[in-house]
Amino acid sequence: MSTAAHTLSRSSDTPLAQQLAQRMTERIQQRLLLPGARLPSVRECARRHGVSPYTVVAAYDQLLATGLVEARKQRGFFVREPVVRATATGTVRKTAAAAPEPFRLAPIDATALIRGMFQADARTAPGLGTLPTDWLDLPMLQSAMRRVITQSTGPDQLALHYGEPAGEPRLRAALTQRLADLGIACTAPQLITTVGATHALDLITRTLLNPGDAVLVDDPGWAIEYARLTQAGMRLLPVPRGEQGPDLEAMQRLAAEHSPRMYVTVSVLHNPTGNTLSLAAAHQILKLAEQFNFQIVEDDTYAFLAPNHAPRLSALDGLRRTIYVSGFSKILTPSFRVGYLAASADKVQKLTDVKLISTLTTSPLLERAVALCLEQGQLRRHAERVLARLEAARQRSVRMALDAGCRFITPPNGLFGWLEVGMDTERLAQALLDEGWLTAPGVLFSPTRQAGTLMRINFATSQEPRFWQRLEQTRAALKTRA
Amino acid sequence: MSTAAHTLSRSSDTPLAQQLAQRMTERIQQRLLLPGARLPSVRECARRHGVSPYTVVAAYDQLLATGLVEARKQRGFFVREPVVRATATGTVRKTAAAAPEPFRLAPIDATALIRGMFQADARTAPGLGTLPTDWLDLPMLQSAMRRVITQSTGPDQLALHYGEPAGEPRLRAALTQRLADLGIACTAPQLITTVGATHALDLITRTLLNPGDAVLVDDPGWAIEYARLTQAGMRLLPVPRGEQGPDLEAMQRLAAEHSPRMYVTVSVLHNPTGNTLSLAAAHQILKLAEQFNFQIVEDDTYAFLAPNHAPRLSALDGLRRTIYVSGFSKILTPSFRVGYLAASADKVQKLTDVKLISTLTTSPLLERAVALCLEQGQLRRHAERVLARLEAARQRSVRMALDAGCRFITPPNGLFGWLEVGMDTERLAQALLDEGWLTAPGVLFSPTRQAGTLMRINFATSQEPRFWQRLEQTRAALKTRA
Repeated sequence: MSTAAHTLSRSSDTPLAQQLAQRMTERIQQRLLLPGARLPSVRECARRHGVSPYTVVAAYDQLLATGLVEARKQRGFFVREPVVRATATGTVRKTAAAAPEPFRLAPIDATALIRGMFQADARTAPGLGTLPTDWLDLPMLQSAMRRVITQSTGPDQLALHYGEPAGEPRLRAALTQRLADLGIACTAPQLITTVGATHALDLITRTLLNPGDAVLVDDPGWAIEYARLTQAGMRLLPVPRGEQGPDLEAMQRLAAEHSPRMYVTVSVLHNPTGNTLSLAAAHQILKLAEQFNFQIVEDDTYAFLAPNHAPRLSALDGLRRTIYVSGFSKILTPSFRVGYLAASADKVQKLTDVKLISTLTTSPLLERAVALCLEQGQLRRHAERVLARLEAARQRSVRMALDAGCRFITPPNGLFGWLEVGMDTERLAQALLDEGWLTAPGVLFSPTRQAGTLMRINFATSQEPRFWQRLEQTRAALKTRA
Repeated sequence: MSTAAHTLSRSSDTPLAQQLAQRMTERIQQRLLLPGARLPSVRECARRHGVSPYTVVAAYDQLLATGLVEARKQRGFFVREPVVRATATGTVRKTAAAAPEPFRLAPIDATALIRGMFQADARTAPGLGTLPTDWLDLPMLQSAMRRVITQSTGPDQLALHYGEPAGEPRLRAALTQRLADLGIACTAPQLITTVGATHALDLITRTLLNPGDAVLVDDPGWAIEYARLTQAGMRLLPVPRGEQGPDLEAMQRLAAEHSPRMYVTVSVLHNPTGNTLSLAAAHQILKLAEQFNFQIVEDDTYAFLAPNHAPRLSALDGLRRTIYVSGFSKILTPSFRVGYLAASADKVQKLTDVKLISTLTTSPLLERAVALCLEQGQLRRHAERVLARLEAARQRSVRMALDAGCRFITPPNGLFGWLEVGMDTERLAQALLDEGWLTAPGVLFSPTRQAGTLMRINFATSQEPRFWQRLEQTRAALKTRA
């Protein structure tokens, strides 16, 4: 079914034109094509889908009829503005009560990027947030799941129970070992499993913050985190993060002025800059947290792509002011939706209560499967192979990026590069999307939704020389037209 | 590991007394033993765990040392009051802002009951909320999961992707058929999958309500729903529900007075009364919703235990004002954590955005497994077998309950009976828990946390004549002492 969404089927009862129209409709509804975006030309669309231009014209006619797109003379077909627009999300919201709507929309482009990533083909998605699927170890996953199913007949009958509220005990036991390897001392009762790291961050927001609270965030940073905090009514305090790590003076000034309750940060292999905190910066941040009495949420989503000795705030602090969050989507598979958090015992108690309210429990089956991969060192060996491969890919990507006239803002590291391309990347991204390339423009990493000339590159999915050529050509063309 | 938590191990390096102390500590931390509860006598505890009285004394000594329990002269050991008590949750909260604490604790007993249910042995848990595990069809589950793993190697490689934001397409397709069988017309884009029905209800609360909103709820009703709404800052408006269904006059009065934004209800096989809405009542409720402009959330958690022709509000209304919620924990397995909601297209769009913020996606693997069970009619046939078995169990339970001097408030139906036992059921439950029986006192189903003489009985797990004897004896003993 998933494939059906990607390829038009000639054996289907549904005419090709209708299939194509449905597919475009989905892309528009999922905001992969934003209002105002131009649809590909009839010829380009026909080529891309391997159908005749007549089929494309018929499909575009259907889209016109539904009112989703409009034709502009001599210019082609464009996605129409919806009647109700999403409001722009400012950096600072006063309180939740100030918003008249019961639902405060997440920044429209954050969800668009995320949604795009679920259907993206890694070969044409240099903006992807994960490893390509063919870098993952499917046999390891299948073997772990087969064993979980077999174990389900045993005395604990994993497959028939809710699982424990805090999460599968065997995974939590394996995680204490994993955290010990990172220098984080932690017992099983300090761990809660979650539906991916996302769920962990969401539980923390709901449990430890109140609407109107000020929260320090990395700038740039991950859009979905901004969206989550904004949707919950928090005031974002962006802390610039560059080659030298977080701007500690800015952090101190913001802390003194706004009394933030929390700092949410990707300390290691920061998304999108690839920056990892120095030991000195980590120490300074903890001192500021102490001085201004804020908590720290350390989002270590890319943990397996970094060395174990990279300094974690949670290791320095001993999980007193820090809460550690990580998961397995970036190294094992996103399909398991297994993440976790580690915190002090008193916080864990409250967080477990909110986990109950939000999902009751999380699946013990998938958590056991992750435990099996961890226990036997399989995951560690897989991560080592991935790292070697990523190293090589990064070198190739960096060379092509530089050859294409781009410049890295921070030293290339980890999965992502943070790239200066010399023109507005939102416009560039739209043009490249029309050509079939999914990129991640800087606006998606800006808490103030500033358009800019930066974009994030996934080293594992930007290996195609064609992409870098198209980027160079598109930039030149857009510059000429402008 | 799960089993290890239940049985003390003589082969372990940890001394038996320490194992026992750890186990009691967990029960106290998980609030299975509430503050003030008496620990079992040394002799009883020794008998239950198959250890010597010396071991028990040593374990209780350790608990005394940690300060978790206290000894009262001539009376035994009692769980100590924690230093910080959960505040009682009033029926009506003004606004979220009125609460000074960043985290508003869920009613303590709601989470206690839920937590208890995760570790309960069905044979000794007449208060259980699910079918006993040996009523579930493990071979069906295992076969479905094996096929999912095999299919993961196919072109869509389910095991390597996040899955689509709204949920696995094949499950959503199967669900449109399932809903059609219930008379609910619905297309796949109107469906979102969730981490159990709990997650669906949580998404709805977060997306469609604002702190301070008034919400109509069934009284009695499910404690976790009250806890969720209260934690989110809503004002609860309890609508009495008895043999005749919801009190429509009370509903009208409350609606006129408080302008609620929503009515959350279990329309079919209501928990705990077993009541199913009549067609006439359903029609009246929809008219009130129209008149006072509130939405309706229809929680159909027990759908598979009821006939398809039972009138659903969502069927009458066509998912305009209604949102339909259901899941598979009560019929297939709680371990998959698969639920879903169906709503109008505009609501689905917003709810999907909040799902992204809360968990990104849900596991496509487990959702595909459910789809396989649905598609081939296996789940339907399993449900038919369960229904026949439940029918027989209900008859036996009802007879024993009546013989034990209890009375059913509403006609016995579905999985649960709503029972008048003639004494305060909170005290009774505590005494029975000391004897090893987990029951569900009425206070857990009261939005105002009224103690009372009612309790919920699970017909499938109250088959032991010994339980009914103990209940009768305990009641007699407590009455004499009082």
